Order: sequence, then structure tokens, then C-alpha cells
Amino acid sequence: LWPLSRAARPKFLLDLTGSGRSLLEQTWDRLAPLSSPERVVVVTGQSHVEAVRAQLDGLAAGNLLAEPAPRDSAAAIGLAAAVIAARDPDAVLGSFAADHVIRNQAQFEEAVRQAVVTARSGSGYLVTIGIEPDRPSTAFGYIQLGRNLAVPDAADACEVASFVEKPNALTAQRYLEDGGYRWNAGMFVCPAKLLLELLAQERPALYAGLTKIAQAWDLPERDTVLAQVWPDLEKVAIDYAVAEPAAAAGRVAVIPADLGWDDVGDFAALAALLPGTDDGVSVLGGQTHVFDLDSSGLAVAGGDRLIAVLGLEDIVVVDTPDALLVTTRERAQEVKAVVDRLRAAGRGGLL
Amino acid sequence: LWPLSRAARPKFLLDLTGSGRSLLEQTWDRLAPLSSPERVVVVTGQSHVEAVRAQLDGLAAGNLLAEPAPRDSAAAIGLAAAVIAARDPDAVLGSFAADHVIRNQAQFEEAVRQAVVTARSGSGYLVTIGIEPDRPSTAFGYIQLGRNLAVPDAADACEVASFVEKPNALTAQRYLEDGGYRWNAGMFVCPAKLLLELLAQERPALYAGLTKIAQAWDLPERDTVLAQVWPDLEKVAIDYAVAEPAAAAGRVAVIPADLGWDDVGDFAALAALLPGTDDGVSVLGGQTHVFDLDSSGLAVAGGDRLIAVLGLEDIVVVDTPDALLVTTRERAQEVKAVVDRLRAAGRGGLL
Repeated sequence: LWPLSRAARPKFLLDLTGSGRSLLEQTWDRLAPLSSPERVVVVTGQSHVEAVRAQLDGLAAGNLLAEPAPRDSAAAIGLAAAVIAARDPDAVLGSFAADHVIRNQAQFEEAVRQAVVTARSGSGYLVTIGIEPDRPSTAFGYIQLGRNLAVPDAADACEVASFVEKPNALTAQRYLEDGGYRWNAGMFVCPAKLLLELLAQERPALYAGLTKIAQAWDLPERDTVLAQVWPDLEKVAIDYAVAEPAAAAGRVAVIPADLGWDDVGDFAALAALLPGTDDGVSVLGGQTHVFDLDSSGLAVAGGDRLIAVLGLEDIVVVDTPDALLVTTRERAQEVKAVVDRLRAAGRGGLL
Repeated sequence: LWPLSRAARPKFLLDLTGSGRSLLEQTWDRLAPLSSPERVVVVTGQSHVEAVRAQLDGLAAGNLLAEPAPRDSAAAIGLAAAVIAARDPDAVLGSFAADHVIRNQAQFEEAVRQAVVTARSGSGYLVTIGIEPDRPSTAFGYIQLGRNLAVPDAADACEVASFVEKPNALTAQRYLEDGGYRWNAGMFVCPAKLLLELLAQERPALYAGLTKIAQAWDLPERDTVLAQVWPDLEKVAIDYAVAEPAAAAGRVAVIPADLGWDDVGDFAALAALLPGTDDGVSVLGGQTHVFDLDSSGLAVAGGDRLIAVLGLEDIVVVDTPDALLVTTRERAQEVKAVVDRLRAAGRGGLL
């Protein structure tokens, strides 16, 4: 979402819905009814520790896990699982990205409740949540639903037949029509110990490293061990390292749910989240900053400037103090090309 | 040209061509070979006196005529004519707007030279310059050429058959095809005394008021007389008050010329003035401020921000520290509607 999000100010720290709460804060709020503050753990990059602390008053000091450098999701989530399991061997862990939007809170709570019930049923399932698609998106991976698992008190729990990669447009349309596919939003729930077992089985070196770090986590030698072990951890996505092999072995369940979910991957997605009509320009950052005439699309007022838009359909204007982006909803996914070009031109300070 | 030009920073004070000189400075430069610094008089609003002085080092202190309030062009040019005639009864006056662009300097000099010859020929002509049209513009009034006047050493001088109002598109096309029409750029040359005579004949009250002010101009009572007389002067355009009646009486001559002239009335006109290709976005204010991909149009970098434009044809982006305009070349003339709406909304501080 450049130039709104930057390396030093990623999406999860931003209020993208005009609610007054960042996506991270909204994630915290969303989990509050399902857990308790002292049981929420945040894993983030070292450079975002201060910002996360500033936003999350209620986060326990020991529950903020800082990655010295990005080692992908298996290391990040595996670290949380190892630290949590060391503190409470019976804990059930739920993993949720902090930069997504979920509009249907009640359905979310019910889905997580059923996921926890399924995870606790002793069946040995890793449980994911499958988002009901409302369009044939090619931007997400899909989960193919299998048979209902007849878990008591978790009526929706099904087996995962398979995880499938981001499809092309034709395949996405077929998935939507089929009705048996859900979006994979990367959310899952399972006993922390089970996650570690699956990791030990699939990625023994990664498991060993994470265990070493977790054992030192609440001790003075944490930083020494981290500095020694972290840089050599394998960089691999948890879906690829754990979820897909487990699904192939019939060990992943899914709770299908209609969450009003979005990962806000581009400005077209952001525009769809904001209030506004087809007649006008949706605004993030203060309606008084925008004057639109005969226009539609999205204006993000990230500064104090007035933004006047005249005679443009499906326009995207993102105004920040040091960078301005003008594009269309259709081209919004190509902002990466601008970012790449800026990096190549030595303008990395703007990224 | 809002938001680039503002009430306090009108077009003539701006460098609109990236040359490093404002339109006012370019007008000064253009007249230098035709006159001498001590014979150039500038008429401007009271609020722009400081800015004009700052730009025009060479302007004599007594040659900056400040209008206490805008009273339209007959009062402004009539004042200059009266002051000039009081100082030099035989002076020939040339009147040129300070917010136009003229690219063909040699042709301009030759046209003014012929205009002065015609004005001095004793024939009693008010002489205008008629711009060769390169498109069927509906934004300008036209001059219909009459017979050649056979003025010695001014071979191009013709009688003005008539001044015609801004035409509709069909009529403009007909004028272009006819070949006997020129754009009226409001430039004229004539003995200062003749202008005053025509004014005395057509607008006696305005003439009397201006004469009273001019007589006091170089005396201590100037301000008293100005304050007393100026507010009651008739607000009327010089074309309407003087040039049209004189043309009807067969007393206006025209020098047709191909000047590369433009009044830079909107951002489409500005875009056409700037270097750039159809493949990219023309830039005013520093190429390094603009990154464009698959786009064409105009970007004005009036601040230090980076402007990134992706996938937009014929876009106009005008970025200033407190206001940003995004529109298209086609809609550029409607910026007035945005300005009107801002004024109505009490946002006059941005105008």
C-alpha cells in the first residue's frame, strides 16, 4: 500500500478503515473476547517493537516476541509456539495476521470457538479457518473442503481435502461456482505442542533451533542464543512447511466461515472497505480534505493538504507528506512496479 | 491555473515554462529589444506591487502603476496612457499582457515594429496584433482581416474588418478554414494621445477621471486623488470601450503574425508548452519529482514531494504545499468549478 505504508510503518500499524484503530489494534480488539490480554502474544520485526508497544497498552512485556530479522512464517509462528508451549504445555495456539480486516465479529468468534473445540477434541487436527469467497479472487490460495468431521459442538468442522495455490481467473471462477472451496487466510488453531510435533517431523533443524531459542527465552541468555541461532533458521512459509504436508496426511481440519475478511492487499481492496458511493470518491483520512466533482474511486489524505479531484472515474489518489501516488483501481496491484523502480533509482528513502 | 496560481500569486508571477523566468520577467525580456527600461510601465494591483518590484530590478520606481482595486482593462490601460501622455505627449504606447507566452521572438519584434510604424504613420489608427491560429480555439475572440493598408515599411498592416466574440466550435472551424481570421490577444500599439482621444469620445466620464489622476500622478496629492476618483471609475474592458467602436469606424489596423502565442488559460495549454512526449508525463517543477509508468499528461511539482503516476492517460496532477489537483487535460478548463465550490465552502484561504 505504498506510499501509505512504508518499510518503517507497515500496514498493520495503520488505521485503514477510519475507525481510529490500526489493523493491529483491531486484531487485538477482535481477540479480546476469545482470550485474555496476558495470553496474547505478538511476533514482530525488531524494528517495529516500539510501535507495537505504543499501540498495545495491554500487551504483557514478555509476550512481545521480536524477530531479529525476517525468517518467514514458519520461524515466526514456530517461535511463538515454542515459547507458549514452554510456559503452558497444554496451551492451544491460534495464529492470526495483524494486517487483515474482519468485519463479521460474531462469525469470527464462533469460527474460532469451533476451531478450539476441534483442536481440543484429541483428534490431532491442525484447524484452519476457511473464508467464504464472495468473488473469484486470484489473489488468495484456496482450501478444498472434505467431509464433515462430526466433531461434537463444532458442527461446521470439515477435513481439508487439499490446499490449492492461487488460481488463474478461470479456475477461481470454477472454485466459486463449485461451492466447495474457501479462501486460505492463513489463520489456524491447534495445540502448541502439536504444531511443534508437526514441525519436528517436517523440518527437524528448524524445530531444533526454535526449541533452543524458546528454552532460553525467559532467561538472561536469550539475546546470545537468538543471535547465534536465528540467522541460520530456514526461511520457509508455515503453509508449505507444516500445513500442506499435514493436509496430505489428513491431519488438517477447517471451519468454513463468512467473516467479511480482506487482507487489504491493494488500494482497490482498501476502497471497497471504506464507506462511499459509486457517485463519489471514498475517503480515508478526513472527508474535509477531499473535494471531488464528477469522480469516483479512492482518496487517501495522509497529510493536511486539500485533494481536489475533477472528472476521473475509478481514480486512486494517495497523498502523504513526502510522496503522492496517482493511479486507478484497476492498476492498483501494480504499485509494486513503482516501488521497484524507486528502489532501483536509489530513492529507497521513500519506501 | 489553481492550485498553482493563487489570488496572492497570480499566473504572471510564476515560471510556467521551466525557463527560470516568470511570465512577467519573460514579458520584460521580450520588450527589452523594442524599448528601453525607463520606458516600460507596469500596471498591477496594489497587492502585487512588492512581488513585481522583486522580479523586475530594472523597472523605474515611477513606472510601476498600482491600481487601488481592479477596475478592468479600460481603467488600467487608460491610466497608463494618461500618465505616459502627461510625461511625453508624442509617446507611442504598446499594451501587452504580462501573463502570456510568446515563443517566436523575432516575429514578435517584427510585428511590433510594423505596428509602431503604422501607429506613427499619421493615419490615426489604433493598431492591434492578430495571432495566426493553429487550431479552431473557442477560448479566444477573433479579428476579421480587412484590406491591406499599404503602409510604407509595414507591409502586413491590414484594416480590421471586425472584432468577433469567442465562437462556438463550428464557427471556430470555419474561421480557421477561411484563413481571414486571427486571434485577438489583446495586444495593441497606438499613440497614447490617440487612445485618450478615443476614450474621451466613447467614455467621457472615465476619460475625465483618468486625466484627473494622471495630472496628480507625479505630485504629492496622487494618493488623495486616486482614493477619491478611482473607486467610481467605470469597470469596462478596453476592447468593448474603445477597440470595437473604433473598428466599427474603420480606425483599427492589425498586423497579422505567427507568434507561438498562448495565454496559458488552463493546464491543457500549460502541458502543450512544456517539453515532453506522448509517451510520458510532461513535468513542470523538476523531473526528479515525478515517476510515471504507462501514463501521459502533465505533472506540476510545486512542492518537494515525489509524484508517482501509474496507468493514466492525459492526467493532470498539480501538487502544491497546501492543495493538490487531480484532473484530466480534457476537464482542465473546469477547474474554475472546483475554485467556486471551495469559495462557497468557506475555503477561500486556499484560493
